[in-house]
Amino acid sequence: TSGVIYARSSKLGVENVSIHRLQVLDDSTLAIRLVPRHLYKLWMAHKMEKKDLEVSISVGVHPAVHLAAASSPPFGVNEFHIANSLLAGELKLAKCLKVDAYAPAEAELIIEGVISWEREALEGPLVDILGTYDVQRMQPIVEVKAVTHRKDYVYQAIVPSSVEHKLLMGLPREALIWEAVSKVVPEVYGVRLTMAGGGWLHAVVSIRKQREGDGKNALLAALAAHPSLKHVVVVDEDIDVYDSEAVEWAIATRFQADRDLIVVKDVRGSTLDPSSDQERVLTSKVGVDATKPMDKPKEKFEPATIPSTSRVEGLIESLRKRLAIR
Amino acid sequence: TSGVIYARSSKLGVENVSIHRLQVLDDSTLAIRLVPRHLYKLWMAHKMEKKDLEVSISVGVHPAVHLAAASSPPFGVNEFHIANSLLAGELKLAKCLKVDAYAPAEAELIIEGVISWEREALEGPLVDILGTYDVQRMQPIVEVKAVTHRKDYVYQAIVPSSVEHKLLMGLPREALIWEAVSKVVPEVYGVRLTMAGGGWLHAVVSIRKQREGDGKNALLAALAAHPSLKHVVVVDEDIDVYDSEAVEWAIATRFQADRDLIVVKDVRGSTLDPSSDQERVLTSKVGVDATKPMDKPKEKFEPATIPSTSRVEGLIESLRKRLAIR
Amino acid sequence: TSGVIYARSSKLGVENVSIHRLQVLDDSTLAIRLVPRHLYKLWMAHKMEKKDLEVSISVGVHPAVHLAAASSPPFGVNEFHIANSLLAGELKLAKCLKVDAYAPAEAELIIEGVISWEREALEGPLVDILGTYDVQRMQPIVEVKAVTHRKDYVYQAIVPSSVEHKLLMGLPREALIWEAVSKVVPEVYGVRLTMAGGGWLHAVVSIRKQREGDGKNALLAALAAHPSLKHVVVVDEDIDVYDSEAVEWAIATRFQADRDLIVVKDVRGSTLDPSSDQERVLTSKVGVDATKPMDKPKEKFEPATIPSTSRVEGLIESLRKRLAIR
Amino acid sequence: TSGVIYARSSKLGVENVSIHRLQVLDDSTLAIRLVPRHLYKLWMAHKMEKKDLEVSISVGVHPAVHLAAASSPPFGVNEFHIANSLLAGELKLAKCLKVDAYAPAEAELIIEGVISWEREALEGPLVDILGTYDVQRMQPIVEVKAVTHRKDYVYQAIVPSSVEHKLLMGLPREALIWEAVSKVVPEVYGVRLTMAGGGWLHAVVSIRKQREGDGKNALLAALAAHPSLKHVVVVDEDIDVYDSEAVEWAIATRFQADRDLIVVKDVRGSTLDPSSDQERVLTSKVGVDATKPMDKPKEKFEPATIPSTSRVEGLIESLRKRLAIR
Amino acid sequence: TSGVIYARSSKLGVENVSIHRLQVLDDSTLAIRLVPRHLYKLWMAHKMEKKDLEVSISVGVHPAVHLAAASSPPFGVNEFHIANSLLAGELKLAKCLKVDAYAPAEAELIIEGVISWEREALEGPLVDILGTYDVQRMQPIVEVKAVTHRKDYVYQAIVPSSVEHKLLMGLPREALIWEAVSKVVPEVYGVRLTMAGGGWLHAVVSIRKQREGDGKNALLAALAAHPSLKHVVVVDEDIDVYDSEAVEWAIATRFQADRDLIVVKDVRGSTLDPSSDQERVLTSKVGVDATKPMDKPKEKFEPATIPSTSRVEGLIESLRKRLAIR
Amino acid sequence: TSGVIYARSSKLGVENVSIHRLQVLDDSTLAIRLVPRHLYKLWMAHKMEKKDLEVSISVGVHPAVHLAAASSPPFGVNEFHIANSLLAGELKLAKCLKVDAYAPAEAELIIEGVISWEREALEGPLVDILGTYDVQRMQPIVEVKAVTHRKDYVYQAIVPSSVEHKLLMGLPREALIWEAVSKVVPEVYGVRLTMAGGGWLHAVVSIRKQREGDGKNALLAALAAHPSLKHVVVVDEDIDVYDSEAVEWAIATRFQADRDLIVVKDVRGSTLDPSSDQERVLTSKVGVDATKPMDKPKEKFEPATIPSTSRVEGLIESLRKRLAIR
Repeated sequence: TSGVIYARSSKLGVENVSIHRLQVLDDSTLAIRLVPRHLYKLWMAHKMEKKDLEVSISVGVHPAVHLAAASSPPFGVNEFHIANSLLAGELKLAKCLKVDAYAPAEAELIIEGVISWEREALEGPLVDILGTYDVQRMQPIVEVKAVTHRKDYVYQAIVPSSVEHKLLMGLPREALIWEAVSKVVPEVYGVRLTMAGGGWLHAVVSIRKQREGDGKNALLAALAAHPSLKHVVVVDEDIDVYDSEAVEWAIATRFQADRDLIVVKDVRGSTLDPSSDQERVLTSKVGVDATKPMDKPKEKFEPATIPSTSRVEGLIESLRKRLAIR
Repeated sequence: TSGVIYARSSKLGVENVSIHRLQVLDDSTLAIRLVPRHLYKLWMAHKMEKKDLEVSISVGVHPAVHLAAASSPPFGVNEFHIANSLLAGELKLAKCLKVDAYAPAEAELIIEGVISWEREALEGPLVDILGTYDVQRMQPIVEVKAVTHRKDYVYQAIVPSSVEHKLLMGLPREALIWEAVSKVVPEVYGVRLTMAGGGWLHAVVSIRKQREGDGKNALLAALAAHPSLKHVVVVDEDIDVYDSEAVEWAIATRFQADRDLIVVKDVRGSTLDPSSDQERVLTSKVGVDATKPMDKPKEKFEPATIPSTSRVEGLIESLRKRLAIR
Repeated sequence: TSGVIYARSSKLGVENVSIHRLQVLDDSTLAIRLVPRHLYKLWMAHKMEKKDLEVSISVGVHPAVHLAAASSPPFGVNEFHIANSLLAGELKLAKCLKVDAYAPAEAELIIEGVISWEREALEGPLVDILGTYDVQRMQPIVEVKAVTHRKDYVYQAIVPSSVEHKLLMGLPREALIWEAVSKVVPEVYGVRLTMAGGGWLHAVVSIRKQREGDGKNALLAALAAHPSLKHVVVVDEDIDVYDSEAVEWAIATRFQADRDLIVVKDVRGSTLDPSSDQERVLTSKVGVDATKPMDKPKEKFEPATIPSTSRVEGLIESLRKRLAIR
Repeated sequence: TSGVIYARSSKLGVENVSIHRLQVLDDSTLAIRLVPRHLYKLWMAHKMEKKDLEVSISVGVHPAVHLAAASSPPFGVNEFHIANSLLAGELKLAKCLKVDAYAPAEAELIIEGVISWEREALEGPLVDILGTYDVQRMQPIVEVKAVTHRKDYVYQAIVPSSVEHKLLMGLPREALIWEAVSKVVPEVYGVRLTMAGGGWLHAVVSIRKQREGDGKNALLAALAAHPSLKHVVVVDEDIDVYDSEAVEWAIATRFQADRDLIVVKDVRGSTLDPSSDQERVLTSKVGVDATKPMDKPKEKFEPATIPSTSRVEGLIESLRKRLAIR
Repeated sequence: TSGVIYARSSKLGVENVSIHRLQVLDDSTLAIRLVPRHLYKLWMAHKMEKKDLEVSISVGVHPAVHLAAASSPPFGVNEFHIANSLLAGELKLAKCLKVDAYAPAEAELIIEGVISWEREALEGPLVDILGTYDVQRMQPIVEVKAVTHRKDYVYQAIVPSSVEHKLLMGLPREALIWEAVSKVVPEVYGVRLTMAGGGWLHAVVSIRKQREGDGKNALLAALAAHPSLKHVVVVDEDIDVYDSEAVEWAIATRFQADRDLIVVKDVRGSTLDPSSDQERVLTSKVGVDATKPMDKPKEKFEPATIPSTSRVEGLIESLRKRLAIR
Repeated sequence: TSGVIYARSSKLGVENVSIHRLQVLDDSTLAIRLVPRHLYKLWMAHKMEKKDLEVSISVGVHPAVHLAAASSPPFGVNEFHIANSLLAGELKLAKCLKVDAYAPAEAELIIEGVISWEREALEGPLVDILGTYDVQRMQPIVEVKAVTHRKDYVYQAIVPSSVEHKLLMGLPREALIWEAVSKVVPEVYGVRLTMAGGGWLHAVVSIRKQREGDGKNALLAALAAHPSLKHVVVVDEDIDVYDSEAVEWAIATRFQADRDLIVVKDVRGSTLDPSSDQERVLTSKVGVDATKPMDKPKEKFEPATIPSTSRVEGLIESLRKRLAIR
């Protein structure tokens, strides 16, 4: 399962809210997956001083809380503030009973506990966004101190590798890519992390191109903005990034591999991709510039439309009437 | 529009049936698009002798006739024989009235005419399978001699770039690719020319891989089997070639560009692809080997399945009963 | 040594004839090299049922029988039928005495035996077509049941790595390459598997080129047609594929590596090449397009000829007469 | 020459301050180089409405004003606000006499004028940061309305291609690169745009590397952050980016071209580089990862130090005393 | 035709002997092909001063004279001295009658003349070493002053593109390559410029390899030693460079393209290769390292030999006796 | 420490002088680093016959002796002869007392000894020219027989990795590169092995370019001339090879990576480079052609100069006078 986890380090003067995978080990302990990001930093700081880290784990929260917890603001920003903004100031927090922590007042279920500074357990194998099993790892343990919940509470699960899982992880990354590409090309029209790429590995970006090399610069910017990205396609503004058929059609008719392809090997990627070198976290990245080349007439690349005549329009009109179509 | 065209060269002792794009020029003449294949050969042979080539043009025929006419048997094979086989010997042909030619008896509309050995006209611009406008070309002319049709005949059109158009062109090529790949790998499970690639430029092939290099050999075989092919992806047998999401997922989790990618530049491709060098008919081809590498454990690449327990099954069963699901 | 081996699987309803390397182990047993092709399939089917496979081994047969046994028709085709066709129906077969098998009546020596379903022996090291020693492998054993031969029989041996050995193996492959290349270019003029490449790894193909990319398509087709191929050169129709000097001259004067070279790495090749990764059967393949580029005047690439004048011809004529040359 | 130019668009509700190259045409007109950035946008907006754009041009200002004007905040931010922050609120602005514009009160020389919406002139050839002559272009014209200056004013010139010129342009870019690289690696230690690269084309970045691929991700991030960048080297934290010898030493001892080099061709670069395709603004970019590989012992890559012993220290001590060195 | 040409520049204090292509224009003028080397330098020096250059042209000389004239010693070395060494001091020179020049006393035919400083003529088209026609060029003219010859003299012609032509040009280059490769590998065993490569474009070098990279260093040295070289193969010492079959066999069994191939594009090559960019004299060069890899057992790459036993040797002996073979 | 070592092999009839690294093991033994060159050959010849090799080791010699000993003339040339030439015949040699060897009479310190044919010791870890520690190796031992020195002798040490160390090693290599490049381009203007590359791995060469490909040929020649070279840059004659800034500026403004870069991988390099494969002595080499492309106007690549007017010159003149500048 997973939950929204709040922790505070009085020493660092920092509060943090994030989502983590939790594995029930027994009635009073959970294994928690900590990737080396903010909560990991807090835990490490406590580990140095041989102190457990007090946390609250909230299950069943407002989508705004989920989204805020999934975003990556700079270290030190309390993600509950972001959620509060998204909710127009309506987020209510409750003080925990047994630990020094806060949790959304309206959460269906709140687990209070501490992340042990010394105990670890073998976590996994669990399914990740790509739908394959992640490797097993030694991970810290949460010792449960108290559990509170609403009456008839609803248990909200994020099914691993479900669309919800992918959207929560991918959405903040799409924003980062959008921002980065915006800085190098005149305009960005769309960014999608595809579901087939786990909402994480494959991106499609549509841009308005002004100069021949803009497509390649957009590729570099996207790869830099989200280091887990493996493959990225950039298309013109007439291609809808959510229409996979259209994107493939753009590749079929606007892309030439010897000119429009970037391959970068032995670069850091995602540990989730089983085809990569998962130990050294190295992968090969691909950029595909499927924008129209500017040295050929634009019309050659445009989809044909069925020309209309007044007679045809008349026929359609009468058909509509007869069929009572709106 | 387009029609199924029958022609016979008594000199070469050859009958041929094929589908061609026709453009109505006026009441008694049509421009006909002849690519340098079989009918072109017959016409050239007549042109050498300054003789017109008599033809029948059939519109509105049985799908088996369409399919046979779209296939590419060796020169000299009468495609009506193939259609007859597909129809279990039930194909009826009728002798034409004004020209020395045959046509399916049950065709909705039959145009009798001759392809002039000397007159040509500017054909196009017309839409091709990729949905873009083909270039204009000087093409031969069909002089209409007679038109016969059924009462209340149905005019069967192949809308350019429609699914029907793509299937008719692509299906025989899928068979060629299947056959060629079968010769180099243990087993082929599926071949698809995607709609987004116009049923012509992009293929997906699924195979059972026995040795590490099988995927690359399959790529070479596919590219050789259908010279218009631009991009081809090969996947394992657990991936459904008709499921684009699954194919993309295989690329995301099983492909590494520095190891699994083939790029061949300046090779003959299709004239239809506007991104290619259409004058010299040169393109860059790409092969993507998205099969599982054999030096890593197989399980790493398999999609996780939700494990079932008797309790879960009991729950599902009772739910089904309550909801009266079959 | 080696022999033409006939086997029949009544269970599969299949007869097969092929040539295999045999190593004399002692008076009544031979080791037999079975690559995973047709006879291997028959043997595996019997192995599954724990039954020995009855075979006849013929030594000293008509060249047509050799050639037929060396060809690779689809599984299920009895190669003796092919030999019979080549011999215009004159092939006589004799029933074996101790096993359920047939052999050419005129063979110098016939060994009757069974391929044991369970016994194997270490075969090798033996010399292969490349003239190097093949690796040692565990291989099945033939238990000899009977030996019959003509009086004063001639023992026909195929010396490993001899020209005869290479021709028998290579000839059917040349046919496959010819056929495959014919499908992608206007005309094929010659195909040779060179002796220096063991009649197996190196091919030269001459074609008539119509469009710039034809050479590269021919390369892809050749590589796909014979997966053991490692290097292939394609030349114009004015180059004789049997004249190695002419082929090299074409490379010297018509080939530019940055434009005309294809390299495909990590693809399945031949186990015989010691430079390859013989365990994973991976090699790097090379295609060399040594056809004339079409964007330069044709004359630049043509060998100069010594111009003749009537005076020179007169001189030659008189010289010939004086020297009484034919 | 060049000056700090203030402009306001009441229509867009936007103020902008930036530095532009100015060429004296005659007593009352200057040609102004407008690259398609913020001031260009304001001018275009006025040009649409056929109105001149009122501006103040300040020469001889406080370095903080120069730096602020050279930075690239988002469109709409008044760079005088930035300068004011840098000066701790001490920036004084003066209202212009003849145009609706402001200028730093303490500027040595202030030119008031309008950028004509319709008049253009041929600007150049002038020297740019790379020390070569920039191409000539048609550029807008500033019509001078008034000139005010201090008594005995100092004319502050930015000599083209001088260190000052390069620092003013490069400094804000170094900040952008620092920020972008920080997002993909654990820590950034230094960023330099080298003088030899015009403070614009060549960057050196030093990072603390945690995983093997970090160097390459840093390269991609740097290239994306400053699209004019042509070459970038990334080094470990023990290398001082301002010590060119040390950077070259790192390349000599820690870099292997087949593994650590990125080349991206046909990507948008800087128009200033004469070796690039200046018409289509396409260049080839290079990333050099000169960080220590992590699969070899760290000590191999460390510079040797002269080991010290107590005897040596004693000797040095006595020498120092004798020589009365501090 | 061609001749051995002697010229002296009293101004430069330099004598030069070289072989040049001569085209008979009429009874008293010849066109002479001057590539920008030593004789060209002398002619240019005279042209500057508007003076004709006096020369002797010798046809029918001792092979040692031919070889010396074909070699490329540093500017200023009189090649007649080299010939004299080769002939152990036996070279006799004769003073010319009409011009200030020397020629071998025993030459069959000596033409005395001057290379005009101002007259040029269109030379060609003539056949060059590759057997194709060289392009036409404006070249200087030799004005004939006197012709002397032996009684019943033999006219010695170098047939263009003949083996003799190629050997004369190639031999000195083979020596240069031998010397250069010797400096980078332990030992050189053979160097051949192949006839099919015109004795000019293609080299084979055999070396004793001590370390893995020696083959590649040999390739670089060969390419640097003879800038007209286009393709070079390096083999081990067990391969005879004059046995093309053996060289091809080494490529088949010891070369892997992804590891052992060097391609350098856009480098200066020979103007004679029609496939190159003859205007800018740019070509693509290829190095093939066909030496045995050192990370595999040596025996795998050795040709098998037929093992001999005393019985076999006895049989051969008795056969020999019976057949009275020497 | 290190010394100039003289040895004579009466058997080979060869004298040799060279510089070697020596490590003091105890009062009477030194470890000596022998790379497989001339002295190593002499020692091996003695080792074969189980004889020690007598040597003199001179410390504190005239720079001409140092330089001569550091050069690499062919085997058999006594480097003292070279030193004698450099000193115009003024080199005085002294006969050793205890061993059959000579040494410069004016050396500060002379060690007489023998290199043992059988004793070896672990040498290192010592610092090499790149400033990193060289690996430890078993090396031969010098047994000291006698030590003679001047009164109040000066101990001359070559500090490892100092400029002196690099110059002594690099200077003779610069000469080799100069000579090799001279053979393939019209003129060489400068060659430098940079200090940052240890005077060994990185070269800069400046040439006068006549044809487009000259830069690349210079790169190949440099790489072939000094096999330890790793990176080489070639620049035009207007760039001073000793001005690193100017070289980098040339790369910034005249180099395009897709056109001007050569990378050769898996080639033999220097064992000193820790980033290389030091066991198999394989490295990747890079050539950078930073010469001006010839298809663009030359002026585009020239540094701008400040134009002078008579008024400016007058001003400068008067300023000079006033300031009394020479």
